[in-house]
Amino acid sequence: MSYYAVIMAGGVGSRFWPVSRTEMPKQFLDILGVGKSLLQMTYERFASFLPEENIYIVTNEGYRELIREQLPHISEHQVLGEPMARNTAPCIAYACSKIKHKDPNGIVVVAPSDHLILNPEAFKTQVEKALTFASEGDRMVTLGIKPTRPDTGYGYIQYVGDEVQPDIHKVKTFTEKPNDELAVQFLESGDFLWNAGIFIWSLQAIGTAFDEHLPDIAELFAEGQETYFTDNEAAFIARIYPACQSISIDYGIIEKAENVYVLPSEFGWSDLGTWKSLYEVSNKNEAQNVILGNEIEAFDSERNLVYASSEKVVILEGVNDLFVLDTPDALLVCHMDREQEVKRIVNDIKQRYKGKYI
Amino acid sequence: MSYYAVIMAGGVGSRFWPVSRTEMPKQFLDILGVGKSLLQMTYERFASFLPEENIYIVTNEGYRELIREQLPHISEHQVLGEPMARNTAPCIAYACSKIKHKDPNGIVVVAPSDHLILNPEAFKTQVEKALTFASEGDRMVTLGIKPTRPDTGYGYIQYVGDEVQPDIHKVKTFTEKPNDELAVQFLESGDFLWNAGIFIWSLQAIGTAFDEHLPDIAELFAEGQETYFTDNEAAFIARIYPACQSISIDYGIIEKAENVYVLPSEFGWSDLGTWKSLYEVSNKNEAQNVILGNEIEAFDSERNLVYASSEKVVILEGVNDLFVLDTPDALLVCHMDREQEVKRIVNDIKQRYKGKYI
Repeated sequence: MSYYAVIMAGGVGSRFWPVSRTEMPKQFLDILGVGKSLLQMTYERFASFLPEENIYIVTNEGYRELIREQLPHISEHQVLGEPMARNTAPCIAYACSKIKHKDPNGIVVVAPSDHLILNPEAFKTQVEKALTFASEGDRMVTLGIKPTRPDTGYGYIQYVGDEVQPDIHKVKTFTEKPNDELAVQFLESGDFLWNAGIFIWSLQAIGTAFDEHLPDIAELFAEGQETYFTDNEAAFIARIYPACQSISIDYGIIEKAENVYVLPSEFGWSDLGTWKSLYEVSNKNEAQNVILGNEIEAFDSERNLVYASSEKVVILEGVNDLFVLDTPDALLVCHMDREQEVKRIVNDIKQRYKGKYI
Repeated sequence: MSYYAVIMAGGVGSRFWPVSRTEMPKQFLDILGVGKSLLQMTYERFASFLPEENIYIVTNEGYRELIREQLPHISEHQVLGEPMARNTAPCIAYACSKIKHKDPNGIVVVAPSDHLILNPEAFKTQVEKALTFASEGDRMVTLGIKPTRPDTGYGYIQYVGDEVQPDIHKVKTFTEKPNDELAVQFLESGDFLWNAGIFIWSLQAIGTAFDEHLPDIAELFAEGQETYFTDNEAAFIARIYPACQSISIDYGIIEKAENVYVLPSEFGWSDLGTWKSLYEVSNKNEAQNVILGNEIEAFDSERNLVYASSEKVVILEGVNDLFVLDTPDALLVCHMDREQEVKRIVNDIKQRYKGKYI
């Protein structure tokens, strides 16, 4: 049985505005300043233990050219272009239907393109363990991150204490983002994990799950079996995508299915969901500033994150706890505690300036 | 007897970095967002009661083109180009020597180009009073601003209580910038005024004063009498300027002379010496923000001054008491209490980037 990876790269990353833009969203940016985009890092992580020709990327059709630039070695048919955003269930149905056409016995890991994983070796170990477990039957597996703080920004997975195999537990419930009090209880109980949106299953198992929980979507993609890997694929997808329900794989399938398992995992994960999460994982200087740019100076200033494109000098003087995010046509100066407002700001700008600056 | 004005426009305005630059300093900027530069406002203030051909502007030779653009109606010989900065005494010696060549009996008001005067009518009244008083004998007159707060950033003028004429007092002493305690005493005593650097004298009186207190400078400019208003003037000035002592008119003459008088004045004056002084005099919105730019939004943010060039969107979220000053190649985010650090920052950048960004 062969292993495959599906990288979901269709997001617009509006929480990382103004650096992330519709034309060039977060996953295509070198937001960590390491010389590679998040997508490139995600791809390399899988390429270290999976055949490169088995790695598929689902993204908006408009980003096909960006993918070609950032991953020049992959073939056209490994890039799956969505004509519009329809959340994760149709995206996964498309990728799994297409791979199934080629290899009905394949085992697949599905993962977002824009998360940070500091320990790729530990990630590889967990994914391989999950791929093996998924290959053994009709079951769906997810990697759950051991929580380190009572974060209210994540969904949680509660698991059954007893192992079905070493390190593998049956899932009891999925929980939406909790309030503060509940998050503390989850952390203290010890049997809750963060839902990282990384799934592992056989194409048989996910096919069965779609048939059962999202039969309309399953039917739509089944129609196109003969078009996959042909010149007719794009036209087929363009025709059926608007008819797909926009729904997440979590809500549509995972939270409803009985055969879901989890591997409690620790591999230095962050979803890089907000500027604050980037601040938290980034290297800080003595004054606890994160400096992303060449000509940035911070005097008597602590705990700031500053981003500026090169060829611009940025000076901070006597300021603390700020995000200072500068691009040629937009500047955001935001208190660190207001990171959740970025999404609202983007919506505000979208309306006020009719799509400019977004 | 004719009245003349000399506008000193040679400063580089480094305290208003990064908006004020060596290439385009403060006096040439519409820093108040009123559609006119400070120089244009200063010129118009004098032109409202003096003949336009009697208004002279001393500036660095490099700014001649800027003056031509901003004041297109004045003649070439009304712009006096300095080959280098030598503080105010040589600047005044040059202007007064040149005007004296044309009109030895002239009475002159000398003023900086980059101050704010909110009440030009009151200014005109005081200047005219001083011009009349100066025309009556060998005396030097200055306008002293009635202090409204114990500011430690200004020099102070102590005056004799008795009037020599209505509203005109003999000066007792000039005082350098005081410390906090002294500034409070000055304010409370009631006989101290701020030194605004606005002087009124006959060309006879200032000539005598230079002969007595700065004879070297007086001699240098006396040599050139035949070159003023000719094609040889610039070459003469270029030759003697390097030999001039770099010294202020205050320190070189005014503080030493016996025949100095002051008119206590109130005309909504600010030297616009720092970003904070601009904040103080500017129109504020409900949240006490000063917004200098078109596409600037401040959410849950109070008491900030934001400057941005047009065609750039700037968002503030949850921040207070900041200067956010954005230009295409430099951004300064500075706490309001650190306004005095701007000069240090400019020096730092000058060294670090070898003159770039300045």
